[in-house]
Amino acid sequence: MNEQQQEGQAGYRAWLAYHPRMDSAASKEESLRYAWIASDDRDDTVRAAITEIVEGIGTMYGAAPRISATATDAAGENGPRDSEPNAAYGAGPGILVGTFAANERLRDIFGVEVAELGREGFAIRAKDGVTAIGAHTPVGALYGAFHLLRLLATGIDESELEIVERPANKLRMINQWDNIDGSIERGYAGSSIFYKDDEIDFDPARIRDYARLLASTGINAIAINNVNAHRLESRFVTGDYLPRIAELAAIFRVYGIRLLLSINFAAPIEVGGLPTADPLDADVKRWWRERAADIYAAIPDFGGFLVKADSENRPGPFTYGRGHAEGANMLAEALEAHGGLVVWRCFVYNCKQDWRDRKTDRARAAYDHFLPLDGAFRDNVVLQIKNGPMDFQVREPVSPLLGAMERTNQVVEFQITQEYTGQQRHLCYLVPQWKTVLDFETRALGEASPVKRVVDGSVHGRALGGFAAVSNIGADTNWTGHPLAQSNLYGYGRLAWNPELSAEAIAEEWALQTFGSNRQVADAVVDMLMDSLDIYESYTAPLGVGWMVNPNHHYGPNVDGYEYDKWGTYHFADRDGVGVDRTVLSGTGYAGQYMGANAGTYESFAECPDELLLFFHHVPYGHRLKSGLTVIQHIYDTHFDGALRAAGLAERWASLEGLVPADDYDEALARFREQAEHAKEWRDRINTYFYRKSGVPDERGRTIY
Amino acid sequence: MNEQQQEGQAGYRAWLAYHPRMDSAASKEESLRYAWIASDDRDDTVRAAITEIVEGIGTMYGAAPRISATATDAAGENGPRDSEPNAAYGAGPGILVGTFAANERLRDIFGVEVAELGREGFAIRAKDGVTAIGAHTPVGALYGAFHLLRLLATGIDESELEIVERPANKLRMINQWDNIDGSIERGYAGSSIFYKDDEIDFDPARIRDYARLLASTGINAIAINNVNAHRLESRFVTGDYLPRIAELAAIFRVYGIRLLLSINFAAPIEVGGLPTADPLDADVKRWWRERAADIYAAIPDFGGFLVKADSENRPGPFTYGRGHAEGANMLAEALEAHGGLVVWRCFVYNCKQDWRDRKTDRARAAYDHFLPLDGAFRDNVVLQIKNGPMDFQVREPVSPLLGAMERTNQVVEFQITQEYTGQQRHLCYLVPQWKTVLDFETRALGEASPVKRVVDGSVHGRALGGFAAVSNIGADTNWTGHPLAQSNLYGYGRLAWNPELSAEAIAEEWALQTFGSNRQVADAVVDMLMDSLDIYESYTAPLGVGWMVNPNHHYGPNVDGYEYDKWGTYHFADRDGVGVDRTVLSGTGYAGQYMGANAGTYESFAECPDELLLFFHHVPYGHRLKSGLTVIQHIYDTHFDGALRAAGLAERWASLEGLVPADDYDEALARFREQAEHAKEWRDRINTYFYRKSGVPDERGRTIY
Repeated sequence: MNEQQQEGQAGYRAWLAYHPRMDSAASKEESLRYAWIASDDRDDTVRAAITEIVEGIGTMYGAAPRISATATDAAGENGPRDSEPNAAYGAGPGILVGTFAANERLRDIFGVEVAELGREGFAIRAKDGVTAIGAHTPVGALYGAFHLLRLLATGIDESELEIVERPANKLRMINQWDNIDGSIERGYAGSSIFYKDDEIDFDPARIRDYARLLASTGINAIAINNVNAHRLESRFVTGDYLPRIAELAAIFRVYGIRLLLSINFAAPIEVGGLPTADPLDADVKRWWRERAADIYAAIPDFGGFLVKADSENRPGPFTYGRGHAEGANMLAEALEAHGGLVVWRCFVYNCKQDWRDRKTDRARAAYDHFLPLDGAFRDNVVLQIKNGPMDFQVREPVSPLLGAMERTNQVVEFQITQEYTGQQRHLCYLVPQWKTVLDFETRALGEASPVKRVVDGSVHGRALGGFAAVSNIGADTNWTGHPLAQSNLYGYGRLAWNPELSAEAIAEEWALQTFGSNRQVADAVVDMLMDSLDIYESYTAPLGVGWMVNPNHHYGPNVDGYEYDKWGTYHFADRDGVGVDRTVLSGTGYAGQYMGANAGTYESFAECPDELLLFFHHVPYGHRLKSGLTVIQHIYDTHFDGALRAAGLAERWASLEGLVPADDYDEALARFREQAEHAKEWRDRINTYFYRKSGVPDERGRTIY
Repeated sequence: MNEQQQEGQAGYRAWLAYHPRMDSAASKEESLRYAWIASDDRDDTVRAAITEIVEGIGTMYGAAPRISATATDAAGENGPRDSEPNAAYGAGPGILVGTFAANERLRDIFGVEVAELGREGFAIRAKDGVTAIGAHTPVGALYGAFHLLRLLATGIDESELEIVERPANKLRMINQWDNIDGSIERGYAGSSIFYKDDEIDFDPARIRDYARLLASTGINAIAINNVNAHRLESRFVTGDYLPRIAELAAIFRVYGIRLLLSINFAAPIEVGGLPTADPLDADVKRWWRERAADIYAAIPDFGGFLVKADSENRPGPFTYGRGHAEGANMLAEALEAHGGLVVWRCFVYNCKQDWRDRKTDRARAAYDHFLPLDGAFRDNVVLQIKNGPMDFQVREPVSPLLGAMERTNQVVEFQITQEYTGQQRHLCYLVPQWKTVLDFETRALGEASPVKRVVDGSVHGRALGGFAAVSNIGADTNWTGHPLAQSNLYGYGRLAWNPELSAEAIAEEWALQTFGSNRQVADAVVDMLMDSLDIYESYTAPLGVGWMVNPNHHYGPNVDGYEYDKWGTYHFADRDGVGVDRTVLSGTGYAGQYMGANAGTYESFAECPDELLLFFHHVPYGHRLKSGLTVIQHIYDTHFDGALRAAGLAERWASLEGLVPADDYDEALARFREQAEHAKEWRDRINTYFYRKSGVPDERGRTIY
């Protein structure tokens, strides 16, 4: 714990707040179950698990477990010490934590059924007064410790614990879009905690707390710099910056998190002094091999490279007449011997010109570029595919590339930072959106190929897969600006570990841990979170059409903001109708990229789901949706309704005054009020725009001006 | 001359380039007419006139006049000296320059008819081989010197000169919107030449050259800081900055230019430590009187204060329940004893809310605020009224306030800097626009009350009046970014001196002085300048509706950019029509602010001039203009045509390669090419927008997409 977690720093502790239990009698009784904690492991990760448990239980119950002598060393110099060496270990109620290999007593308690845990799983069993957390690895034990604390904080009765968990996904990654000047691309919570003024500059205590937050949800990898790696960031792979990067890696390592770097494909030229970055050039290959060797000398468990190439003016293999596979494989070869990965982003499109091009459908780009390359990538390459074909809109169909490549490792990329979903000034709990993506049936193998089974590798039998997402944190005390936006970071990690968790269950876990066990607070917060995505969607761009935002910064309504621009983001609204014809029959053909019956569903004007209708079809304003409303009336109704519901969020939050910490309360209330005002602006701009275009009045006679 | 006027610094000398005459035989002969120059005046201003003539004639003819002994002192240490004292004076052809009071021979030459010249006028007469420039004041003599040089540079035969000139307007002012951080609000030619890094920081040689340029056109006042005076600029009126401001004033003084300061109405609070800025508060009055005394102690001919109050969130008397007259008069009282003016801007409107308000017509604001105050202002207050009711759009009607106040001093405000007219990346010669304004018949007194006669004071017998305009210069070597944008600064000064000059005559003067006497160049440049306003108007917002620009920076097309914003700048386009109903009968009533028959002309759908139709009326797309075209076809035709004509400008300029200095050529060519591309973008955005709204295809079948 560092000094930032003081009074007046509400929000900093986030979901690791370990609020004191409100029922002090019950609390006292429960605390007796954890009189001591012990482990025979001696590594930093198990020490971290012990420290966390001592802190968590101590804060929640008012009495910290004594660290038994055998575990004293593990807790390190600063942990509380048992006054009676060995007295507690094994006698009376307590906690055992660690690896099976090091702890004979854990092997005794769990017996033989533990193989299924894998490298990162854990088992928890309460037996004979001892709560045992066992794993094959120290990080498994750490995950188990966080899990036990989560159960205690959310009020689960832990007397009959019998838990076996392992993560669904191998790769559970966070991408920081942080720049070395201290700014964060699409960051809405202050400046970077990693960089400042063109230097790597961080507070180790804050980085450790970030690692704790991430590890508590199960995150195991972090790319620490922006995928748009600019001139100075290009040099991260050279010697100058490596000592500081290694310090960061060492902090994350304790929490089971491997560090990756976003690289600049042109680095051999920009910082290597070579005349080319051609991936087939022998000098280029050698240069990258040397960089990999340097990095692994400093960071033995380095995770690998994250690459955005040949997209939005980033350099890449196309310059040299090479393809994505040749580019990725060259880097993969350099990392292979060290166990590193190449994570290659599929957000690939380029504007061929300075002016709009309505013939090319940008939605097609990822599929068109990558499908032909299936099987061409090395085993340590993973393609990182955005959840939708465009760019993190509030509503998009699922990317047709997910599941389409049978012989290629894939991770799905989400955006935790709310670039298009209110920039942490509007409440938008994104877990329901991600659940929709994960549960989407790709039909890759008939009827049992949802996205979550594609990216965990099981559909196509891939050894590697998982999740990536863009972080939403910054140097703001509460990490995420909007206090409730923490739920998105938390929820992402939890889903990456277990995509079967419901959005509501995650919301409830988060609320109870963050605000304590007051049910009134938790219920209100869960309701607000669960409503928020629908509210946001209702007052912004309708029916999946997207992009009605201000260019560049992407905050606030601008119906035609992207309509006359070069980015391939058009809604084609005219006086008769709106929407993009992406059918095979008469449109861009994008609908045909889907597998099996999905293609037909989207192709069909009648079958296409309402919420995606304008993404796939250009539709007259008078067309009746499945809801029975016309398109234009749907627009009016959802926008009037959405603005009212946004105002309701502010009221609901106001009802919690005095029940949540004052800092959090004030911070969030100001944002809810901004959201309510801003939702009215959204309502009026969208409604006026479509009223003026269509000339159709609101059936219910409300004022559109 | 300073060292910036070297090779490779083309553009710096602007219209004072004094190109060598191309016909060397004629040149030689003419130069004989100016063998010497003499004056009995001894002040800095006449010295400057002599220096200018020596430099100008020397450069143009290859032989500088000898400064006669009697004038040697006047030319100062650095002027060329006559080798034979007194030998030249009065013998053979030469130039006499100075005041009648100091020069007996001037009195002899001109006789008695010189009273009409006033304080700033001059007379030129060539008689008996002597070219005489006489005036009542040194600055009159300076204006005469510049005029003679203009005649020589433009090739006027000066053997029979008989010229009497006096300025039409008393106040001929430039407003610098320069900020002390070195930035310039709406500046498109580099940073400030006055400020840098929160300090007053200038190169005296450059300021002197700016003063020369201004004085050569007749400018006699300059407000040196942004009308939006911020915290540091508020302190210009206190002691700290005055020594440096006095240095600037001293440079301008030599060239007959009085210095003014833009003030912050809240300065008594912000820098004076008073609890209020209430104009009726005794302490506030005293504070301003003290400031005025301080300033005049440092700058005896200080011009006065320029004030933007109670507009766009600037502080003003409204805060204290006072009106504009009370605010202005309080400042005027403080300045009165010293001979200073208060120039009070009428660009007054405020957004009452954060969101749009379609009921209030911002166009009405200046008239509604100020008309009731007629007669309430002190004699040393001048109202500065923007040429149109909105904000320097390419086409607006003339402000109805101009001429409406009989007992109030008025100056018309133009914008030389091209905020809404292409930002010195597009060519837009604004003199024709200003001429339209100046020639507009206000009907204040029946049929002989054009704006130019209102602002020169003659219509209502006001002692004070004139022109103000926002400068377009910055630290770019060529002053204005686009080399041809210099013509706007030149033209503004010339019009302020003499509003009867034609736009074409001014263009020709400017071209010949700037690029030399090559007729091919001058003819091409004049043609381009004269076409440019119409070209710019044709591809931007149609028929006077304005505001189809990107918010904030105001560059480039954004048809709905201001349509849903709070600034009162709406075009009301819907599927049926476009334009703002400002009639009395059914609209905002703005048309009724005009005097006499003008009100009826604008009120009438049939009589309203085409070019202002959408400013005054909401019109169906199918309405036939007086041109015979429908509104929608007019939009299509002008936009297709405008883009073609913009491309033609680039071609015409390209034909001058080798005939204009290479730096100018390259600089302008790059801008013409940008303009041509950008005009296509304008064309496509506007046409597509209206095509989608109206559904009416182009009669001529051109592609609108």
